[in-house]
Amino acid sequence: MTWVQDEAFSADQPFGPQTLPYGVVDGQIAVRLGDQALPLRPIAESFGEHADLVAADSLNPLLAAGRQAWTDVRARLTELTQASATPKGAALVPLGNPVLPFTVADYVDFYSSKYHAENVGRIFRPNDDPLLPNWTHLPVGYHGRAGTIVVSGTPVERPHGQRRGQQGPTFGPSQRLDIEAEVGFVCGGPVTGRVPVSSAADHVFGVVLVNDWSARDIQAWEYQPLGPFLGKSFATSVSGWVTPLDAFSAARVHTPPRTHPVLDYLVEDQPWGLELLLEVDWNGSIVSRPQFANMFYSFAQQLAHMTVNGATVRPGDLFASGTVSGPERDQLGCFLEMSWGGRDKIALLGGEKRTFLEDHDTVRITATAPGPDGSVIGLAEVVGTVSPAS
Amino acid sequence: MTWVQDEAFSADQPFGPQTLPYGVVDGQIAVRLGDQALPLRPIAESFGEHADLVAADSLNPLLAAGRQAWTDVRARLTELTQASATPKGAALVPLGNPVLPFTVADYVDFYSSKYHAENVGRIFRPNDDPLLPNWTHLPVGYHGRAGTIVVSGTPVERPHGQRRGQQGPTFGPSQRLDIEAEVGFVCGGPVTGRVPVSSAADHVFGVVLVNDWSARDIQAWEYQPLGPFLGKSFATSVSGWVTPLDAFSAARVHTPPRTHPVLDYLVEDQPWGLELLLEVDWNGSIVSRPQFANMFYSFAQQLAHMTVNGATVRPGDLFASGTVSGPERDQLGCFLEMSWGGRDKIALLGGEKRTFLEDHDTVRITATAPGPDGSVIGLAEVVGTVSPAS
Repeated sequence: MTWVQDEAFSADQPFGPQTLPYGVVDGQIAVRLGDQALPLRPIAESFGEHADLVAADSLNPLLAAGRQAWTDVRARLTELTQASATPKGAALVPLGNPVLPFTVADYVDFYSSKYHAENVGRIFRPNDDPLLPNWTHLPVGYHGRAGTIVVSGTPVERPHGQRRGQQGPTFGPSQRLDIEAEVGFVCGGPVTGRVPVSSAADHVFGVVLVNDWSARDIQAWEYQPLGPFLGKSFATSVSGWVTPLDAFSAARVHTPPRTHPVLDYLVEDQPWGLELLLEVDWNGSIVSRPQFANMFYSFAQQLAHMTVNGATVRPGDLFASGTVSGPERDQLGCFLEMSWGGRDKIALLGGEKRTFLEDHDTVRITATAPGPDGSVIGLAEVVGTVSPAS
Repeated sequence: MTWVQDEAFSADQPFGPQTLPYGVVDGQIAVRLGDQALPLRPIAESFGEHADLVAADSLNPLLAAGRQAWTDVRARLTELTQASATPKGAALVPLGNPVLPFTVADYVDFYSSKYHAENVGRIFRPNDDPLLPNWTHLPVGYHGRAGTIVVSGTPVERPHGQRRGQQGPTFGPSQRLDIEAEVGFVCGGPVTGRVPVSSAADHVFGVVLVNDWSARDIQAWEYQPLGPFLGKSFATSVSGWVTPLDAFSAARVHTPPRTHPVLDYLVEDQPWGLELLLEVDWNGSIVSRPQFANMFYSFAQQLAHMTVNGATVRPGDLFASGTVSGPERDQLGCFLEMSWGGRDKIALLGGEKRTFLEDHDTVRITATAPGPDGSVIGLAEVVGTVSPAS
C-alpha cells in the first residue's frame, strides 16, 4: 500500500503509478499522481546526481539532460511513489491551473493522417487526386509559431484576418474557426542534426495532446504558395502535463501497411506507432474518437525526416502529428471534416447544431493508451474555450 | 577629433559614427566602430539606469527593454564615441569572428518582392498568372526554423533530401542549392499581440542581412500543400551586427505605387520603405545589386500583418523581407531567378560559370543606405561558404 492517498492513483486510471507525467506546479517541477501533484523540489535530494534537474522551475534542464537521466528519474519516481512510508519532505498538492512546463524552442506541425489529408484534398480540390504525389513518400510538415503555444485552459480568442470575398478580400473575425486534434512530441537530449529513426527515442522525452486551432477562412485565402500562417499562428494549445515516452511501452504498434516502400532513412527498425485513443468533447458532447494507430508516419519517422537535411533538434522542440483522423465519421479530428467543409451540421447533446466553433464553445481533447499489465496510460487533457473577437 | 582611432570610423564609411551597430564580442555586448569593436561592459556605468542592459552577454535584455531604452542607449553611445578623451575603461578590440548576438525566438520569412514572386511564378507555373490572387492584398509569409539560424561566417553544409525523380523520389545531396538575399528585422519591446503599422517601429530594434539558403530541388518536391520545410530549414545566415532602426532616418521612402488600396490595417501613416542597396558577391564577382526600395510591403506592414490575428511578438523574433529582387537582370536576389530556373549560365570573374552553388563557393551579401547629411549607413555582411554534403 503506497503512501499516496488518491483514488485516481491506480493502475486502471489514466494517471496511476504507470504514467507519472511531468508538469510545473507552484513554480516547480511536479509529477501528477492521480488527481494531485507531487512537487519535486522538496524531495530533490532523493534523486542523487539528478537533484538539480528535478529541483528546477521548468522542465528545460531535464529535457536537455537526455535519455539516461530521463530513465533514472522515472525509475526513482516509481520507487518513491510506491513506497509505503511518505518520503521525507513529500507532500501532495492540488493540480491547480496548468502552466506551460517548458519553453518551446521550434514548433513543427506534420500532416501524417492519410484519412485527414485525403478528406481535406476532397473538400478543397474535389476534381483532383485527394493526395498530392509527395504525401506517401515523406511526412509533409511545416513550421508553426512557437511563441503562441499556450497551455491547456488558456482562452482562445477568435482571430481577425483576411478572408476571400466576392470583390477582393474582406477583413474581420474568422467565421470558420476549427480545431485539430493532434498528438505532440517534446524533444530533448543534446543538440544534434540528423536523428536516425533508430535513435528517435533518445530525443523524444514525452508526449502531449495538441489542439491546433485553425481559422479555415483565413487559411484558405493565405496559404498559397507558402503554407498556413495567420490561420494557425494565433494560438496552439498543449497539455499542461507531459507523459514520458517510457510510459508507452505497451502501446507500440506498427504503422499501417503501405502501397510502396519508403526511402531508407524512413525505414523503422522497430514499431513506433502508438495505440492511442483520442476523444474530442465539444461542449460536453463526445463528437469523435480518433485512433492514433492509424497515422501513416510515426514520430520516429517524422523526427528522422525533420533532421535528415542536417537541421538540428534542440531541447524544447515540439512537433505535432497532424490532425488525427480515422476512416469513420466518428473518428475525425477536425470540424472541417466532420461538417464536410461546412456543408453538414454536427449535432451536439441538447439539440444544438454546429459546423464551426461559436463564441464560448469549449473543446476538450483527452487520450488514453494501453499500459503494462492491463493498466491504462493517460495524456493530460487539452481544453480551450473560444472568447469573442476583440 | 574623437578618441576613436579607426580610419573606417568616418561618416563616408558604412560603420562610421552614424551607424553604431550592436554585436557580441568576447561574450559581451559591443558596438562596431569602423573595423573595430567597443565592448560595453567596462563602460556600462556610463549608461546610468541602462547599465545592466549594456553589460549583458547578449542583446536579449536590451531587446526586451523597448524603444525608450534603445533611444537612450544609442544617444549615450553617440556622445561617448564622439568624445575627444577616451572614456574611462573604454578600449577598442578586433571585430573577431561574429557570433549570433541574440537568441532568435520565432522566425518568419516573407515574400514581399513583386519581381521575385512574379519571376518564381513564371519559372514554376509558366501557364498561369505569375502572381497568385492573394499576393497584392497581403504580405505572404511563413514560419521558418529559428534553431538553425546561424551567424555570418558559419559554413553551410549542402543538405540531403528527397527530390522528384522519374520513378518516384530520389534521395541525396541537393543539386540546386541557392541563396536568397534578404533583409531581416529584429524585434523587441514588451510581448504583445496586434502591432498596428503606426507602432511597428516600437517593436523593431534593428536590421540585419539574411541569406535564406534554399535547396530548390528539395523545396520543389516537398512544398505542396504546406509550404517550404526541409528545403530551407538546414541553415539561414544572418549578419553578426544589428544596425539600429534609428540609423535609417534618412533612408525612409514610400513603398512602390499599388494598383488597388490595401486593407485598413495595412495602410501606412508614414513611409517605412527603406532605400537600401544590396550587393551579392559570388566567389568575388558582384552578380547582383538588388534595391530594397522596390519591396511591395514594408517591415511595418509585415509586422502589422503578422500580428493582426492576435499573435504575440516577442523580443528576439526575427522576420525577413523575402528575396529582394528588382526589375533588371542584375538586380535579382537568388540564383534561381538569375539562371532562370537553371536554364542560363551565370558568368563569374575568371571565366567560371554557374547555375546553382557548387561546393566551396562563397556568397557574401552587403548593403548600404543613405545616412544623415550625406553619410552612409551599413548593414554588416552576411557571408557563407558551402561545404560538401557529409
